[in-house]
Amino acid sequence: MTRVLIIQTPVKVVKRLFCDILRNMIIGIDLGGTKILTALADSKGRMISSVQVDTQAALGPEKVIANIIKSISLVAKQAGIPLSRVSRVGIGAPGPILGRAIIVSPPNLPGWVNVNIKSILHRKLKKKIYVENDANAAALGELLFGAGKGFRNLVYITLSTGIGGGIIIKGKPYTGSIGTAGEVGHMVIDQKGPKCGCGNRGCLEALASGPAIAKMAGRKNALEAELAARRGNKRAQKAINTAAKYIGIGIANINNILNPDIFVIGGGVSNMGRLLLDPVKSWARKYSMEASRKSLIIVPAKLKGNAGVMGAIAVCLKGDE
Amino acid sequence: MTRVLIIQTPVKVVKRLFCDILRNMIIGIDLGGTKILTALADSKGRMISSVQVDTQAALGPEKVIANIIKSISLVAKQAGIPLSRVSRVGIGAPGPILGRAIIVSPPNLPGWVNVNIKSILHRKLKKKIYVENDANAAALGELLFGAGKGFRNLVYITLSTGIGGGIIIKGKPYTGSIGTAGEVGHMVIDQKGPKCGCGNRGCLEALASGPAIAKMAGRKNALEAELAARRGNKRAQKAINTAAKYIGIGIANINNILNPDIFVIGGGVSNMGRLLLDPVKSWARKYSMEASRKSLIIVPAKLKGNAGVMGAIAVCLKGDE
Repeated sequence: MTRVLIIQTPVKVVKRLFCDILRNMIIGIDLGGTKILTALADSKGRMISSVQVDTQAALGPEKVIANIIKSISLVAKQAGIPLSRVSRVGIGAPGPILGRAIIVSPPNLPGWVNVNIKSILHRKLKKKIYVENDANAAALGELLFGAGKGFRNLVYITLSTGIGGGIIIKGKPYTGSIGTAGEVGHMVIDQKGPKCGCGNRGCLEALASGPAIAKMAGRKNALEAELAARRGNKRAQKAINTAAKYIGIGIANINNILNPDIFVIGGGVSNMGRLLLDPVKSWARKYSMEASRKSLIIVPAKLKGNAGVMGAIAVCLKGDE
Repeated sequence: MTRVLIIQTPVKVVKRLFCDILRNMIIGIDLGGTKILTALADSKGRMISSVQVDTQAALGPEKVIANIIKSISLVAKQAGIPLSRVSRVGIGAPGPILGRAIIVSPPNLPGWVNVNIKSILHRKLKKKIYVENDANAAALGELLFGAGKGFRNLVYITLSTGIGGGIIIKGKPYTGSIGTAGEVGHMVIDQKGPKCGCGNRGCLEALASGPAIAKMAGRKNALEAELAARRGNKRAQKAINTAAKYIGIGIANINNILNPDIFVIGGGVSNMGRLLLDPVKSWARKYSMEASRKSLIIVPAKLKGNAGVMGAIAVCLKGDE
């Protein structure tokens, strides 16, 4: 009798451990307006396989959710790993997320109004589901796997068609009272400045986003403004420096308010590199108060195109309260 | 033998409990440029007694620290409670506090340069010492005892000669990477605006502090501007509304970035009451993004002149990481 017990116990323990290892795979999903990028990772967040499918946003939420499910099947199949071994699915989605569950109404996902993506995916997949705003997810991705490794308080700013942000406090995404924190692009910096899409005037987004730079430079888009500036065009150079000043003031404002350990700058416009980031840094330093200036660190994002999907994986690892 | 053990155990337990109760008193200190306000409270933070002594800031740190110690003896004597029954002493001090210990160099405490008030008071008093920036302390005081009861994420804004702030996240003071968070007064809102004492232009403090209101109204100080406005003076009314607009934009900016549960507005200028706070609320609503506008709550502070000292007591109760 005693012998049987002694043999049974380790077998049970080993079996349980083995099951845990087998079931510890993670899927991360970057839900964008045109593409869904889905990756499968191991329990440490190391990416094993990834796929990309069209969002087909115009066909409405039901079709988009079907495409999400399809991308999950595809990525598992591609990796040769059965879905039963996946325990957690994380999704980074645009716009404010209420209660880490509900997608409110992002402009690039028409027809989505207060869609509880968490409960829908849980019902369909029977996995633990994590939902986070895409900028918050990218912020956490940079903290765990990218430019913010080793820090605890991080502000991620994405410079693109719009300007958004994600805030990490003490190693966790900070989303605020109802989940709308991080909207750094709608900080008013020049209250008599140009009109913003949000209806107000002089928001950072209206002053320094890709389209704002293109307009100031008299070019089709921010990339053309960059190329012109690199060729020595004065107007394009001035446009980029003006945008850098506003971004620097925005960073200084956040530094004075939050004094984070590090700012990580991502998004398409940040691909200009030092042409933009060098003046951003010096303006941010000038407009920070003396005490908080000392601790100001601004670095470019590292994860680039994978920020969203790595962020969604990071949320599975660290997204719990 | 068994009987002795049974008798001994409860005696020990009762004795230990009794000692804990006896030693659980708290002292809170509000260190200002002109007055030191010191209070003794029980283990729940209920104030038993308070005293006020002159800071004598011009006589330098040594004299000020001697006055702090004197105020502690006085308040204990006044309450008839021996200092041995006090286990924790909290102090709210002006300016940034490095590492919850070091007072950097507040303009109203001449001669104080990187004074480690925590270790000095610990050496002299042999008590557990808590040091916090005065605005952060007031924020925590409002959360525990004042207008923010029951909330977790709170931003306290003090409108006075300067404009400062304190941030509470998940029920704890948030001080940032090196302890300089909360400087909401130096958020740039109108980058072509008037010069600020900090050297930049268009900071909230330069646009909406007491002196800024007085200047716009053409009066000696904010109180005279208020009285003139209440008597129907158009220029004074316009000055207060303009300041309210800037304060509203500042709150909206913080709301878009941090989306706290509640904003609590204190400081001498906030004593104008609804004359100032009603337009502040409507501007803050206008400049908040739609999603975060819904959760925007702005209330006046409740602790008034006791905010600092109640805050210092609160820091003893909740200031630990």
